[in-house]
Amino acid sequence: MLRLSPRQVRISAMTQPFHPPQRILLGPGPSNIDPRVLQALVKPILGYLDPLYLDCLDEIQSLLRSVFETENRVTLSVSGTGGSGMEACIANLVEDGEEVLVCVNGFFGQRLAELVQRWGGKPIRVEAEWGQPLDMERVRQVFKDCKARLVTMVHAETSTGMRQPIEELRSLRDIRDAILIVDTVTSLGAHPVRIDRNEIDASYSCTQKGIGAPPGLSPVTFSERALEKIRSRKSVCRSWYLDVQLVDKYWSSERVYHHTSPALMNYALREALAMILEEGLEARWRRHERNSRAFVAGIEAMGLKMLVAPEPRLWTLNAVRIPEGVDDARVRSRLLNEHNIEVGGGLGSLRGKIWRVGLMGAGSTENNVLLLLSALQKILPQEGFRIGASGASAAALALGS
Amino acid sequence: MLRLSPRQVRISAMTQPFHPPQRILLGPGPSNIDPRVLQALVKPILGYLDPLYLDCLDEIQSLLRSVFETENRVTLSVSGTGGSGMEACIANLVEDGEEVLVCVNGFFGQRLAELVQRWGGKPIRVEAEWGQPLDMERVRQVFKDCKARLVTMVHAETSTGMRQPIEELRSLRDIRDAILIVDTVTSLGAHPVRIDRNEIDASYSCTQKGIGAPPGLSPVTFSERALEKIRSRKSVCRSWYLDVQLVDKYWSSERVYHHTSPALMNYALREALAMILEEGLEARWRRHERNSRAFVAGIEAMGLKMLVAPEPRLWTLNAVRIPEGVDDARVRSRLLNEHNIEVGGGLGSLRGKIWRVGLMGAGSTENNVLLLLSALQKILPQEGFRIGASGASAAALALGS
Repeated sequence: MLRLSPRQVRISAMTQPFHPPQRILLGPGPSNIDPRVLQALVKPILGYLDPLYLDCLDEIQSLLRSVFETENRVTLSVSGTGGSGMEACIANLVEDGEEVLVCVNGFFGQRLAELVQRWGGKPIRVEAEWGQPLDMERVRQVFKDCKARLVTMVHAETSTGMRQPIEELRSLRDIRDAILIVDTVTSLGAHPVRIDRNEIDASYSCTQKGIGAPPGLSPVTFSERALEKIRSRKSVCRSWYLDVQLVDKYWSSERVYHHTSPALMNYALREALAMILEEGLEARWRRHERNSRAFVAGIEAMGLKMLVAPEPRLWTLNAVRIPEGVDDARVRSRLLNEHNIEVGGGLGSLRGKIWRVGLMGAGSTENNVLLLLSALQKILPQEGFRIGASGASAAALALGS
Repeated sequence: MLRLSPRQVRISAMTQPFHPPQRILLGPGPSNIDPRVLQALVKPILGYLDPLYLDCLDEIQSLLRSVFETENRVTLSVSGTGGSGMEACIANLVEDGEEVLVCVNGFFGQRLAELVQRWGGKPIRVEAEWGQPLDMERVRQVFKDCKARLVTMVHAETSTGMRQPIEELRSLRDIRDAILIVDTVTSLGAHPVRIDRNEIDASYSCTQKGIGAPPGLSPVTFSERALEKIRSRKSVCRSWYLDVQLVDKYWSSERVYHHTSPALMNYALREALAMILEEGLEARWRRHERNSRAFVAGIEAMGLKMLVAPEPRLWTLNAVRIPEGVDDARVRSRLLNEHNIEVGGGLGSLRGKIWRVGLMGAGSTENNVLLLLSALQKILPQEGFRIGASGASAAALALGS
C-alpha cells in the first residue's frame, strides 16, 4: 500500500486536476471565447522587447484604432482589467481640487464619481434613475452652472442595460471647452462608439465583452487634447503603473521599458480584434442588434418585461425584470446547475430586481438566444411564474424575419 | 480574378496570421512556460462569481501561501503585472508626508523610491553601488536617525542579479517597530523567501519568472500588522483598482464584486503553483542553484566575469559583464536571430555593461545552460573576444559533479 506523508497528502489535495465545465456565459462578462482567440493564448511567448512582439503591439494599436473608430495615436491596451482603464483615465486626467461633471444613472456612473473623489477631484453629479437616460438639457444646465472642464459619461451602463446617447455630449463645447471621458466597457466591438466623430477625448473598455477576448486587459484611447491636459498637470500623476505617459513610452517608438507586457493576453486581444475587422464593424453591430431584439421578443412573449425602454436599450446587456414572487438566486442557480448557463444578477439598487443577460462577442448567437429562452420556459413555471406565449418561438420568428 | 476593395486590402493586411517563433527565453522574464501551464489557459472560462471559479481562487490563495511560506490570510494575485503589485504595496501602505526607508542598490530599488515619492511619502534612501549588497549596519544607522516606520527592500534585484539578505531586516525592530516591504519579483518560487520566518509584512512578486506562469498577475501577501496600518489610514488610498481592502473583499468570503477577475490567467497561475508544490520548494531551489552554478562555471571558464560576487548572487538572474570591445547589441541580436535565444541587456547605469541571463521557472534547465554557453562560445570569438576554456564543458562538469 502506498503511504503518503501528511505533507504529501496536503500537497496532493491542493493539486487536484482542475476541470471547469463548459459554461454558456450569458452574464455581464466574461463571455465565451472563440477557439481561434483561445488558441492565440498558447502561441510561443516572446520577450517584451522582441522585435516580433513589438510588431504585434503595433498591430494591436492599429486594430484598436479601427474598432474605437479613431485616429488617436495613443490607443493601446492597459495591462489590467476594464477597471484599470477607468482608473487610468481618471488618475491621469483629474487634478486635485478640480470640478468634474459626472453623469450617473447606474453602478458604473457611481463608480466614476467615487474614482473622481479618490483622485482628488470634486464630482458634480447629474443623476437619472437607474435604467433611465440622462436628460441632456439638464446635463448642459449643470455644466453651465459649474466650473468643470472634465465630463464623464457611461455609454453602455453594464448595471442597467441602458445606452446613453454620447453623440450629444460634444454640444457641451458650445458652453465651454471640455475634455469628454466615455466608458465604453460594454459597447466597444458591439455598438458603434465613433470616438472621433463624437469628439470623445478619452475612452476605456475591456476585452471580455464586445471584443471577445479573455478578461485581463483594458483598451484605452486618448486624444491629443487629453494628452495635452495630462502633460500640463501641475502635480505628477500618483499612479506609476497607470501613468499614460510612461505606458505610451513603451508602446510608441521609444520602447522605454515600463513593465513586462502580458504577452499572451495581448496575442488573444490581437486575434479577437482581427476577427472583429474580418466580420466587419457594421455586420457585427447588426448581429448584436438582431440577437438582442430576438431575445427581447422572446422575453416579452413570455410575459416578462425589460428594465429599459426600447430606444436606449443596449444590444449587449439585456436587463430583464424579475417577476414578483420569483426567487432571483434560485432561478440563476438552476440555470447554472441544470443548464450550465450563467446569467448575471442585479448590482446595487437593482439587486434581486433584474437579471442581466449578456449577448456579447462570440456569445451573441441565435443558438444562445433560443437556448436561454427555452431554459427559462422550463424553469419559470416551476418557480411560480405563469408564462404567456412561447419565448423561443417568438424569438425564432423574430430571427426568421 | 479576385478584386479587393482598398478597405479589404487594409483589413487583410492587418489580420495576417501571427506565428511567433519558439524562442528560448533566457532574459529577465518572461521565461518559457511549461505546456501544462499553457494548456490551463484554454480551459473553459467561468464567470467571476461561479462557485467553481471561487473554489479555484481559494486554491490559489492556499497554494500562494505555501510558496510565500506564510500563513497570511490576505495572500492573492493582483490583476496586473509585478509592477502593479509593487504599486499596491506602496499605494496602500504609504501615507502623505510619511518617511519611508528605501534600500537602493539597483533599478528596482530606485523605482521603489520613485513610487514612495509619487504616493506622497518621503523616501529616505540607503544606497549601495549597483550589484553590491547593502551594509545592514548602515541601514540600521539610517533607520535610527530617521522617523520611518516603513522599510522597503528588494530581495532579488532583477537589474543586477544581486540577492539582498532579507533575514537581517527584522533586526530593525530592535530599534523601533517597522512595517517591512520586500520585493520578491525575481525570487519567489526559485529562492527561499520565508515571509513569516523573516517577519516580512508585505511582499509582491510576478508570475513570469520563478513561478513559471505567463506575465499578467502579481502575487502579493500582507500581514495582519500591514493590514492594520492600512485600515487605520488617515486618508483613503487613492487607487481604487489596487485598494487591497476592496480586492480582499472579493477574494475573501464576502465575495463583493470589485472587477472582473482575469480567469484564464488565474487558471495558469494555479497550475504553475501546483507544479511548484509537486516539485517541492526545496527541490526547486536546488534546481535553480545547480543550474546557475553550472552556468557561472561555464562563463568563468570562458574568461568572462560575473557582476556580482558569489555569496550574494541570485540563481534566477545571472548578470555577466560584457567584455571590453564586445558590442552588446550585436551579440544579443545574433543570439536572437541565429539561435532564437533571448538574453536581457543592462538597465540604467548598467546599460551596455552586462547581459542579464535568466534561468527561472521552467527555463532553469541543464539544456538551456549548455545551449546558451555553446552559442556564446560560437559567437564571442567572432565578435573579438578570445575565449579561455570551453564554457559548455566546464558547465557539463559542474552539472555532473
